[in-house]
Amino acid sequence: MRIASYAGVQDAARQIARVAVRTPLIESPALNARLGGRVLIKAETLQVTGAFKFRGAYNRISRLTAEEKGRGVVAYSSGNHAQAVAAAARMMGTHAVIVMPADSPKVKVAGVIAHGGEVRLYDRYTESREAIGAAIAAERGSVMVPPFDDPLIIEGQGTTALELLDQSRAVGAASIDHLLCGVSGGGLMAGINLVMAATSPHTRVFAVEPEAYDDTRLSLAAGERRTYPPVDRPSICDSLMSAMPGELTFPINRRMAGVVTVSDAEVAAAVAFAFRVLKLVVEPGGAVSLAAVLAGKLPVRDTITAVILSGANVDPALFSAIIEDRYTPETWGTPS
Amino acid sequence: MRIASYAGVQDAARQIARVAVRTPLIESPALNARLGGRVLIKAETLQVTGAFKFRGAYNRISRLTAEEKGRGVVAYSSGNHAQAVAAAARMMGTHAVIVMPADSPKVKVAGVIAHGGEVRLYDRYTESREAIGAAIAAERGSVMVPPFDDPLIIEGQGTTALELLDQSRAVGAASIDHLLCGVSGGGLMAGINLVMAATSPHTRVFAVEPEAYDDTRLSLAAGERRTYPPVDRPSICDSLMSAMPGELTFPINRRMAGVVTVSDAEVAAAVAFAFRVLKLVVEPGGAVSLAAVLAGKLPVRDTITAVILSGANVDPALFSAIIEDRYTPETWGTPS
Repeated sequence: MRIASYAGVQDAARQIARVAVRTPLIESPALNARLGGRVLIKAETLQVTGAFKFRGAYNRISRLTAEEKGRGVVAYSSGNHAQAVAAAARMMGTHAVIVMPADSPKVKVAGVIAHGGEVRLYDRYTESREAIGAAIAAERGSVMVPPFDDPLIIEGQGTTALELLDQSRAVGAASIDHLLCGVSGGGLMAGINLVMAATSPHTRVFAVEPEAYDDTRLSLAAGERRTYPPVDRPSICDSLMSAMPGELTFPINRRMAGVVTVSDAEVAAAVAFAFRVLKLVVEPGGAVSLAAVLAGKLPVRDTITAVILSGANVDPALFSAIIEDRYTPETWGTPS
Repeated sequence: MRIASYAGVQDAARQIARVAVRTPLIESPALNARLGGRVLIKAETLQVTGAFKFRGAYNRISRLTAEEKGRGVVAYSSGNHAQAVAAAARMMGTHAVIVMPADSPKVKVAGVIAHGGEVRLYDRYTESREAIGAAIAAERGSVMVPPFDDPLIIEGQGTTALELLDQSRAVGAASIDHLLCGVSGGGLMAGINLVMAATSPHTRVFAVEPEAYDDTRLSLAAGERRTYPPVDRPSICDSLMSAMPGELTFPINRRMAGVVTVSDAEVAAAVAFAFRVLKLVVEPGGAVSLAAVLAGKLPVRDTITAVILSGANVDPALFSAIIEDRYTPETWGTPS
């Protein structure tokens, strides 16, 4: 398999230009004042289907042959990749089957269906989504569109960083000291790392993970891909629960400066801050980078720090609980 | 008193450039698809203090003399102007007293206090905010910063349209067919009309009002300033309840193409749509232009239509009720 590259990211940018949103880079004077530095917020929450995932999904699906389109695509995802694949498939005139955890946020399942996708639910704790997806692909001859371990997916996600650099130059913040981004399988992170290594090597790139789902942190420390110890309860960050870093993404992401972890309470505080001060809707898993800077996990005073808000597909009930200060990690299970 | 002008708007743009947010112009493929046209969303929700009001307040307060700053400023406002005046006053090192309705959203009162302002509450139905403000100004020698009837305020708000035109050109949408914006006293509307008359005279500019608070509609029809008939209940749009168009703003706004009205239910649907699809936090009064296009009040198919989302300071309890579909105009009174 071909290896993902910076040139591939540039090619992806051309491929998705007509259909993806060039999401704004937002700066909040209130946030800057609070942290004593400049924070550049890349709002992928405003991307098609409400998360960066559309970039990679469209970059992959738009390159299917006519024959492949006839057989459809299949994908497994906790939700944001799912919606992105469904939307991109519909744009390209092909059928999508999405394998989703039964405990996915309703808003994400509804999103897939609204975009014309076919949903197959599975049990996150007892079934293998990879096996189910592979079985469907084998049966129907569909093309698997993986959530992160695919060069075209990685390159599509990397277009986020191309835009970020371009936009940061336009606001006089060309030299970014830190870049923080949530990580799960590592597709977006890998795309970003390809771009930053090629064009802004002095930027220190940090992945952010939920505390109990710190497979990337453990893997970087071990020098090889690891999973986290068994976790007895779900995280508020339903979109960041991959069991381990990807086979293709991990070698790229090993170059990162480090990993920062955040608690569910810190994430909820960031979602509430985004509502109250930034006026942006962000889902918990999409807010971990903001949570990290708000919780002081990384010193950002007198620096230029970029944070990616990666998704915004949050169920209204959970969002309401967070903004009304009724949420506590103890009283909430999986967002339903 | 000097008359507000397009040149004044250009001057205001220079005056506020270092401190105001150049708010993004956002386009949602999902919204475009739904309406069958291009909708350009000017997100003043992302402005300092969460509403366009900061533009005018800073443009006025930053021009105070040293002596005037020593005596402080006073303003009356249902909330967004209040927060903007408090923030601009603090930036300029002067004191602000804000006269606010006792039923203002808590988030707005809290915002004023957080920005260092002093709050004086009054009863919206039995007291005159103008009289209270004038008394304070007389007693302390403070400068009154009116919410709309002031050339510098009007010109400051007009910078919104300057940016909008610049940004629309950058995305290949230079020729705007319609522009919709909520109206109350008419300061933002007047600033926009000054800019559009000077630079884009073919654009049809529409004001949007809550159904029961249609003083601008009645005034345009009568050819002179009118108030609405007594209303027995508050509107969900707490920021759009001025009794009549301004003395300075009305002559400018008479040039508009027309006025569109929306119901509270239509406004709530727009706030929910902004949460669910646009991923933006918008307060009811800030969402009336979006409500008008979503409710089909103006045919926008095959056109380029700009909508201003003018504010985002909404109490969490009301926002939660709307996004969880628990809000009905019958069961909610004034947002508390």
